[in-house]
Amino acid sequence: MNVIEKTQSDLLPIFESYLVDTGFAKEPKLLYDSYQHIMSIKGKRIRPLLTLMACDAFGGEVNKALPVAAAIEIFHNFTLVHDDIMDNADVRRGKPAVHTKFGINQAIICGDAMASHSYKQLCHIKDHANFADIVCLFTRTASEIMDGQQMDMDFETRNEVKEDEYLTMIKYKTSVLLAAALQLGAQVAGASSEDQENLYNFGLNLGLAFQIKDDWLDTYGEADKVGKKIGGDILNNKKTHLLVTAMNSASEDQMKEFERLFEVTNENEKIDGVMKLYDQLEINQKTYAKMEQLYADSLTYLEKVNAPNKEALQDLAHSVYHRDF
Amino acid sequence: MNVIEKTQSDLLPIFESYLVDTGFAKEPKLLYDSYQHIMSIKGKRIRPLLTLMACDAFGGEVNKALPVAAAIEIFHNFTLVHDDIMDNADVRRGKPAVHTKFGINQAIICGDAMASHSYKQLCHIKDHANFADIVCLFTRTASEIMDGQQMDMDFETRNEVKEDEYLTMIKYKTSVLLAAALQLGAQVAGASSEDQENLYNFGLNLGLAFQIKDDWLDTYGEADKVGKKIGGDILNNKKTHLLVTAMNSASEDQMKEFERLFEVTNENEKIDGVMKLYDQLEINQKTYAKMEQLYADSLTYLEKVNAPNKEALQDLAHSVYHRDF
Repeated sequence: MNVIEKTQSDLLPIFESYLVDTGFAKEPKLLYDSYQHIMSIKGKRIRPLLTLMACDAFGGEVNKALPVAAAIEIFHNFTLVHDDIMDNADVRRGKPAVHTKFGINQAIICGDAMASHSYKQLCHIKDHANFADIVCLFTRTASEIMDGQQMDMDFETRNEVKEDEYLTMIKYKTSVLLAAALQLGAQVAGASSEDQENLYNFGLNLGLAFQIKDDWLDTYGEADKVGKKIGGDILNNKKTHLLVTAMNSASEDQMKEFERLFEVTNENEKIDGVMKLYDQLEINQKTYAKMEQLYADSLTYLEKVNAPNKEALQDLAHSVYHRDF
Repeated sequence: MNVIEKTQSDLLPIFESYLVDTGFAKEPKLLYDSYQHIMSIKGKRIRPLLTLMACDAFGGEVNKALPVAAAIEIFHNFTLVHDDIMDNADVRRGKPAVHTKFGINQAIICGDAMASHSYKQLCHIKDHANFADIVCLFTRTASEIMDGQQMDMDFETRNEVKEDEYLTMIKYKTSVLLAAALQLGAQVAGASSEDQENLYNFGLNLGLAFQIKDDWLDTYGEADKVGKKIGGDILNNKKTHLLVTAMNSASEDQMKEFERLFEVTNENEKIDGVMKLYDQLEINQKTYAKMEQLYADSLTYLEKVNAPNKEALQDLAHSVYHRDF
């Protein structure tokens, strides 16, 4: 067991136990039931663990960070509930989405209530010296996540997306919450502004590298390791880092070929055709280089952080990035 | 011009000007456009005015209360955007609802972003000594509003609703935001806890009286003054204070008659039939007495408030309650 595994096995049960005790009021029942449904579809609880690990890294009291960790996990799950409506995604991790099980109206009010409850969690530490900074970082992040979701929706109907627009979108939609989860833990522990900022940038760059690796694995991963069919993004014409980079460097003829392939319905023809264009444009290498650079940047920021126990965060960065799944 | 009219004519332009300057970022454009659409469908801005008036009543600096007033108005409008989706209401004050003009997905993300932006407004006064109390009262209120909306949705499909359940529902759905708007203004001005509490209870009881008067006017108001057709709630089988009180005191035979009337489609037959039952059960008098009691309670709380300039609030209570529209 490495440090990150040990940290997770220590912190996860503490967090889960806190979440159970600090749940919604049992009434109104449908609000509680729909909240319980989404919260029981457990992911890896990576965001709250980041908060607890960051607090721990600075020698802070992990118990004081629990409400902040819960706020982040509840807020994250709220965005999943509403995103699933907007994406028309009926299934989440093999279980029915909230709107599938309870209807769209219930999913809307459930998400709205969860957003409020995340702030209720923050209010559990309203006497903390850094409370105002904690609330306002949380709020800035929440607002950026909405911008990211809007940009993601906008990209679906746009023909042209620049690489920096794509990076801004994934930064807001995914990375800022990972970065904020870390900084919030550091705020609870009373870390210096400089350490907080470096930790935030560590999380931001790691999140970007993680998201781009997600894109890369969908096309260049090994199917048996990734655990799903390769090429799903290509079949959905999804504007990934690969496609955005390719379209921005394509010649007029290559662009026409992309446009033809977007309409192709034969799966193999489509995947082979797009990957041929990717090869011509050296997309595998370009995207790989981009994520390597972002990962290196993240480690540089982490090195600058003055925290007594940061091994777990180093291990985390390694295990998040060097996954092949 | 009475004090309340003078106060409104002084404060409203200040508030509107603040809202324009402190709007959303212009990008992502659709988020901004949908936000602008709902915020331009102006109501009376009663909630932000309450905040500014309460701050002013305690001699506080109205400018410092502007971000809090904006937070309340933006949050209130967020709930309108999502309620209109849930209620399938395509029109708001004669203009298309956000989901009618921009689609349901855009209305969901617009509302979510507005919720975040309301907290961004609060963060404009993050250095205020009462910031933690302000954020946490705002949050408790937001959460209660969601409970109220859930209860309102639940009531539609329930056969039996008790009077106290009805009162709890309108308290959460409507009154707590009016009450909080007042208390938040008092918090900005640095009022004592006792004054804050009395002001809150003034708003809570006035809000309940206001909401029940709304129900009462829909059946017993004068059509030309109310400005809409009398009996709309009866035609919709809406669980108003009148209907809830009636059903809770009805005999078995009267209950059967209610159930028969719920299915009647002829408008006059339905309205006449329900009003005949209301007459038998003295619903006009019972509901009128309830709202008179709530209004008297609200004034008792206001009397206890030690604020140098509370005439505007007294006038407000009078003008809100003694309306016939």
